[in-house]
Amino acid sequence: MSNDAYVPHPDRLLPSDPAVRDIARGLYAEMKDQPIVSPHGHVDPRLLLDDEPFRDPTSLFITPDHYVNRLLHARGVDLADLGVGRGPLDEQDSRKAWGLLAEHWHAFAGTPSRYWMEHEFSEVFGLTTVLNPRTADAMYDELADKLTRPEFRPRALFDQFKIQVMATTDDPTDDLAPHDALAADAAFTGRVIPTFRPDKYLEAGRSDFPGLSDALGEAAGVDVSTYDGYHEAMRARRLYFRDHGAVSSDHAHMDPGTARLPLEDARRLYSQARGGTIGEADAVALRRHLLGDQARLAAEDGLVMTLHPAVYRNHSEKMFQKFGPDVGFDIPVAVDFVHHVAPMLNDVGHDPNFRTVLFTIDETVFSREIAPLAGVYPSVYAGAPWWFIDAPDAILRYRRAVSETIGYSRTSGFIDDTRAFCSIPARHDMSRRLDATHLAGLVAEHRMRHEDALELVATLPDQQPREVFRLGAAGEKNS
Amino acid sequence: MSNDAYVPHPDRLLPSDPAVRDIARGLYAEMKDQPIVSPHGHVDPRLLLDDEPFRDPTSLFITPDHYVNRLLHARGVDLADLGVGRGPLDEQDSRKAWGLLAEHWHAFAGTPSRYWMEHEFSEVFGLTTVLNPRTADAMYDELADKLTRPEFRPRALFDQFKIQVMATTDDPTDDLAPHDALAADAAFTGRVIPTFRPDKYLEAGRSDFPGLSDALGEAAGVDVSTYDGYHEAMRARRLYFRDHGAVSSDHAHMDPGTARLPLEDARRLYSQARGGTIGEADAVALRRHLLGDQARLAAEDGLVMTLHPAVYRNHSEKMFQKFGPDVGFDIPVAVDFVHHVAPMLNDVGHDPNFRTVLFTIDETVFSREIAPLAGVYPSVYAGAPWWFIDAPDAILRYRRAVSETIGYSRTSGFIDDTRAFCSIPARHDMSRRLDATHLAGLVAEHRMRHEDALELVATLPDQQPREVFRLGAAGEKNS
Amino acid sequence: MSNDAYVPHPDRLLPSDPAVRDIARGLYAEMKDQPIVSPHGHVDPRLLLDDEPFRDPTSLFITPDHYVNRLLHARGVDLADLGVGRGPLDEQDSRKAWGLLAEHWHAFAGTPSRYWMEHEFSEVFGLTTVLNPRTADAMYDELADKLTRPEFRPRALFDQFKIQVMATTDDPTDDLAPHDALAADAAFTGRVIPTFRPDKYLEAGRSDFPGLSDALGEAAGVDVSTYDGYHEAMRARRLYFRDHGAVSSDHAHMDPGTARLPLEDARRLYSQARGGTIGEADAVALRRHLLGDQARLAAEDGLVMTLHPAVYRNHSEKMFQKFGPDVGFDIPVAVDFVHHVAPMLNDVGHDPNFRTVLFTIDETVFSREIAPLAGVYPSVYAGAPWWFIDAPDAILRYRRAVSETIGYSRTSGFIDDTRAFCSIPARHDMSRRLDATHLAGLVAEHRMRHEDALELVATLPDQQPREVFRLGAAGEKNS
Repeated sequence: MSNDAYVPHPDRLLPSDPAVRDIARGLYAEMKDQPIVSPHGHVDPRLLLDDEPFRDPTSLFITPDHYVNRLLHARGVDLADLGVGRGPLDEQDSRKAWGLLAEHWHAFAGTPSRYWMEHEFSEVFGLTTVLNPRTADAMYDELADKLTRPEFRPRALFDQFKIQVMATTDDPTDDLAPHDALAADAAFTGRVIPTFRPDKYLEAGRSDFPGLSDALGEAAGVDVSTYDGYHEAMRARRLYFRDHGAVSSDHAHMDPGTARLPLEDARRLYSQARGGTIGEADAVALRRHLLGDQARLAAEDGLVMTLHPAVYRNHSEKMFQKFGPDVGFDIPVAVDFVHHVAPMLNDVGHDPNFRTVLFTIDETVFSREIAPLAGVYPSVYAGAPWWFIDAPDAILRYRRAVSETIGYSRTSGFIDDTRAFCSIPARHDMSRRLDATHLAGLVAEHRMRHEDALELVATLPDQQPREVFRLGAAGEKNS
Repeated sequence: MSNDAYVPHPDRLLPSDPAVRDIARGLYAEMKDQPIVSPHGHVDPRLLLDDEPFRDPTSLFITPDHYVNRLLHARGVDLADLGVGRGPLDEQDSRKAWGLLAEHWHAFAGTPSRYWMEHEFSEVFGLTTVLNPRTADAMYDELADKLTRPEFRPRALFDQFKIQVMATTDDPTDDLAPHDALAADAAFTGRVIPTFRPDKYLEAGRSDFPGLSDALGEAAGVDVSTYDGYHEAMRARRLYFRDHGAVSSDHAHMDPGTARLPLEDARRLYSQARGGTIGEADAVALRRHLLGDQARLAAEDGLVMTLHPAVYRNHSEKMFQKFGPDVGFDIPVAVDFVHHVAPMLNDVGHDPNFRTVLFTIDETVFSREIAPLAGVYPSVYAGAPWWFIDAPDAILRYRRAVSETIGYSRTSGFIDDTRAFCSIPARHDMSRRLDATHLAGLVAEHRMRHEDALELVATLPDQQPREVFRLGAAGEKNS
Repeated sequence: MSNDAYVPHPDRLLPSDPAVRDIARGLYAEMKDQPIVSPHGHVDPRLLLDDEPFRDPTSLFITPDHYVNRLLHARGVDLADLGVGRGPLDEQDSRKAWGLLAEHWHAFAGTPSRYWMEHEFSEVFGLTTVLNPRTADAMYDELADKLTRPEFRPRALFDQFKIQVMATTDDPTDDLAPHDALAADAAFTGRVIPTFRPDKYLEAGRSDFPGLSDALGEAAGVDVSTYDGYHEAMRARRLYFRDHGAVSSDHAHMDPGTARLPLEDARRLYSQARGGTIGEADAVALRRHLLGDQARLAAEDGLVMTLHPAVYRNHSEKMFQKFGPDVGFDIPVAVDFVHHVAPMLNDVGHDPNFRTVLFTIDETVFSREIAPLAGVYPSVYAGAPWWFIDAPDAILRYRRAVSETIGYSRTSGFIDDTRAFCSIPARHDMSRRLDATHLAGLVAEHRMRHEDALELVATLPDQQPREVFRLGAAGEKNS
C-alpha cells in the first residue's frame, strides 16, 4: 500500500522555518560525515570479537532495548513475550514479538526510540516501509535475510558506521581479554576500549560486599581484608584498565556524594562492611568516601571520571525478582551536585590530571549547577543529556540551558550510552542535527556569527569528545 | 469605539509560522467539534439539577474564580469587593466588582484567565468588544440580560458545550442525591458523575478528625472506633460512590506518600488520632498509610486514583481566617513522586484493576519522574498540567517533556479541573489547539508522520480520557 | 581582513520569523530609547564621584568581570594572568590579558558575556571588528586611546547611557559620603542611591560576628551588647540609608528563611553569637529570625526588601584562600521559597508598607513558587532572572514561566545587578529586545492584542521598576 511507504526525511529535526533551516542544513552538512567517537556505551566487546551474525530482528531490536520494552509493557505487553528474561526466542515467538512491536508502533510516534529505529531500518538496512501490522512480516523477513549477509555482521557495520573509538563498560575484575584480542587483531582497525565501572564494589551496604571485595582483591592480587588493601586493589585494577586502553571510569550511585571520612573511620567502617555489620547510614557514608577515593585515584592515573547518579534502580521489586535489573523500572530522582561534589573538587578539582564529567537526568541542574560548575573548574565538564532525556526536545533544552553559561567548549560532546549497537549512528546523527538546529537558531537571531558556528561544528563531533576524554588524535588504537 | 471591537482570532494558539500553522489548523479541525469528556472537575451538580439562571456576571465570572481574584488582590483590590466571603452582591456592588475587573483587565493580558474569559464572552455569550472601563457597563448589561434567557441556563449550556460526561468532586459522606436525580431525569441526557474525595478523612492530625471519622462511619453504617472499622467504612463509601456512577477517587495531600505501617502500628496510631493525641510525625505516617489503603481499595473497586499533591494550602493565615480556603493563597511546592509512590506501586502497581493518574504543578517531575513511571507501569498515567500550569506555554512544556518518553498514549487526556462552568469549553478548546500546535511542530520537523498525527487526534479529546478513566463508550449514562 | 569586520546586527535577539520579527521590531522601537532605571547593582559610587578615566581595557572589561574570568579559568587560564587578586596590571601584562581574552573569544560565542561586550565595543566605543588574535592589539589600542578622552569618562558615559537612577550596594556601616557628594553636586544630574546590604551582620555563626556587630553599633551610636540594642542599631542604620536616598535593602543568604524565634531565644542566641559560642544550627536559626526582623523593619521604613538567596559561595576553598570572594566560584543551589518566606509573609506580608522582590537562579521556582506568590500577595514581586540566568534563553523561559500566572505587572522590571559599568546599557537593551520577542510571540499567536502589547511596552522599562522600587517620578534626585 502506498501509505506504508516511508523513509525518514533528509531534513528531519532541522528547524521548520525555511531561513533557519537553510543555515542548519549547512551546519549539519559539516558534521554529517565526521567519524563516530563514542567514549561511553554498553556494547559487549565480544560482539566485535566474535563477529557473529545477529540472530534475528527481535533479539537485535527489541529484547535488549529497555526503552522499547518499557513502553510496550506499560501498554499491557508481557515482558516475557518480548524475550525478556528468557533465552533467545524461537522463530515463531520472535516473529510474534515483532508483531507486538508493529501493533503498538503508533504509540511510539514522536519518541526517540521510534526515531532511532526508523533511521536504522532505512539507513542501515535499506527498508522503505513504515512498521505496522500490515508490513510487519515483510519487514521481519527482509531484516532477517539481511542479518545473514556479511555486510551486516558487527565488524562490517562498525566500519560502515565509521566508528573510530567505542568504549565499553566493564567490571573491575574483568581481564579485558576481548579488548586485548581486538587490539591485537590486525584485521580489525577500530579502537574498542574498556571503561572501569566499580559501582557495586563501592556499595558497602550490599549483602554481597564481602564477596565482591574479595573478588576485587583476587583480580588485583592484593589482600583486601583492610581498607588500605582494598584501596590498593582499586588502584591496581584502575591501572590495569588504563594499561588496556581505558580512558575513563564510570560511577552511578544514588547520589554523587564524595564526602571524606577521617581515615580511621573509613578503616573501621570498611571492616564493618567486610563483616556484614555496617549500618545503612554508615554504608552510605563509606560509599561516598570511597567515591572520593576514586577521584583521588583518577588524579593519579588520569582516567576521566564520569558520574551518572540519581536513578532509583529496580523501582518495582516484583519485576526485579522476575526479570532482574535493566528491564525499564529504573526511575530518575532529583539530584544535588553542588554540595555532593564539593569535597571531591576541593580535594582534587584543581589537579590538572583530574577530570570529571557530570551527567544528569534531572534537567533542573543544567542551568543551576552543572553549567556553573563546568564554567569555572578546569576539571569539570557538562555531560550530554542522558537516558530519558537523550531526546530531541530535551537535547535542545540542554543546549539552551548550558550554552549561555559555558558555550560548547565545556560540554562532553555526544555520548550515546547505548547497548543497542545498531542505534549508534542514529543517535550520533540525531545529536548532530540538533546541534545544527540549536546553532542555526543562534545565527538566525544574530546571537552568534555564522562563521563562528561553522568553525565550531567543523570539529565538534569528532574533536570535542577526543579532547574531553583524552582520546588522543584519530588513528590511534589502544596504547 | 472601533478599537474596543474584539473577538478572539480563529487561529489563536496555533503556530505563527504559516507552514506549521497550516498543519496545525488541519489537526485542530479534527478535534474542534469532538464532544467534551471531563473526568475531573469542581462544578456543583445542583447547578444542573436546579437549572436556575446564573444570577449576574460578577457571581458567574469573578467571585468564585480564584485565578481572577488572586491577581486582582495582588494588584491591590480587596477580595471582599469582589464578593469573596460575602453573600451574593447586590446590583450596585456587583457592577462595581465588574468595573474593577475592567480596570485591571490589561494586567491579565497573556494569562489563561483572560484567554478563557474572552473565549466565553465571544463564543458562549456573543459579545464583540474587549473589556475595559469604557465597555464595562455595556458588557455587564448585555451579559446580565442574556443570563436571564433560557438558552443560557446551565442545562442549555451543558448541551451547547457538548459535554458528554462531567465529573464532580464530592465528600465521602455525601448521599449523591443530586447525581441520582440527574441520572433519573429523562429530560437531562448528560452524564454527571461523582468523584470520591476523602482528603480530610485521611488527615489524622486534624483536630476534627474524630468527628470526621464519626461522620464517615455514620454514612457507611459502620463503627469506626477502630482502624479496621474505619477501613471498612471507607470501602463501603467508595462502593457507594461507584454504585452511583463514580469512576475515580481524588487525593490532594501535602505529599503523595504511600508508605505502609505494620498493621498494629496503624491500629495504634488510628486510636491516637481518634483520641486526639497523635503526634505530628505520626499523623503524617498514618495519613501515608491510609493513602496506601486507598490504593488497595482502588485495586478492589476499580476506581481510578488521581493524585494532586504538593500544594501549601492557605499560605496566608490571615486571609484564611478572614475568607476561608480556596481564595488564591494556595502555593505549589516541590514534590518527589518516585520515592513516595514506590510503596503503593510495589503493593498494587501490577494489579490490572489498579490505576493511578499523577498530577503535578511542579513541572520538574514531568520528564524526570512522571513520564518514566507512566512509561513502564501499566497502572500509571501522566496527568495533564494542573492549576497554575494549565496554561499555553506550560502545556506545551508538558507535552515536550513527557512525549519523548511516553508519547500521548500514557497521558490522561485533558482535565479541566474547574469550578467555572462556563470556562469548560474554553479550556478544552485551548488544550486541543495546543495539542495541534505541538503535533504540527513534530510533523513540520519530520519527527512524526502527518498521517500518524491525524490518526492520533481523530480520537484524542474524546477517547483518551474515556479509556484512562474507564468511562466506557459514548452514550452511556450512569450505570 | 574583511571577515574581521563586525558590528552587532540591529535585529539581534528578535525572532527570526519575518512576521513575528516585524511585530517585535515595533515593540522594541517603543522601548529602545527609554531611559535606564537601575534599582539594583554593584557599581562603586566613587566611580562617578571621582570621574577618573578608566585605566585600560583589561581593568575595565576583564579583571573585575567574574563572568568572563570564570570561563577563561575553566579553559585553563590562570586568574592571576587576568589581574585577579593583583593590583592593576602594567601595560605589558594588561595587553597580555587582553590577548588571552582574544585567544579564547570563540569559546564565548553564544554567551551573554560576549553579547554584552560586543554591544559595548560597538555601541559605546565605536569599534567595528570582532575580537580575535589578529585584531586584539588594534582593538586594545583603540580602546585604550578612547578611554583617555573626556567623552568616555564615567560621568559622560552615565549621561550617554541615559541612566536616570542607579542604585549601588553598600555596607550598613558606610557613611554614604560619596552618595551625598553626588547628590550635592549640581554638575551631576543623575541619581545614584545606596542599597542597604546587611548580609554579614546577620550571619551569627561567623567568627567575626562580634566585631561586625560592634561596628554596626558604632555606626549607629547604639550599644549592641544585647539583641535589643542590635535591633535598634539595625533600625537606625536602615533609616540612615533611607535618609540618604536608599529605596531598598538586599539580602543574600544560603536560604530565604524567615522563621521567627521566641524573643527570649533570640536574645539568648544573640548573646551566644556575640560570645562566639553559638552552635551551627542555632546560628542558622538566629539568622533566619534576624532576616524576619529585617522584614519588620522594612514594614516600618518602607525600604523594598530584595532577596537573592541560595548560592553556595566560594565553592572552591583553595581559590577563596588565593583570590578571595567573587572570582567565579559561587554556584547556585536549589531553593524553596514557599516554606521559607511563609513566616515573613504571615508577619508583614499584608502590611501595605512592606514590599519584597524574590530573585532566584533556580529556575524551577518561577512557575511553581514565585509567580503563584507574586500573583496573590500585594507585597510580593517576581524578580527578573539573576546572574547565570540573566541571559537570552533563560530570560525568555522566565517570561514564559511567570507571565501566564502574573502577566508583567507583578514582575520587578529589569535589574542589571552588575559591577561592570559599561555593560549597563547592553544589559538593559538585551532585556528590552527579549521582552519585545516574548510579547511579539504572544501577539503573533493571537494570545495578546497588538495594542495591549504596545501599551505595555510604552512604560515597561522606565515605569515598572520605578513603581516596584518606589522610586517616584523621573527627574527626582535623592530626597
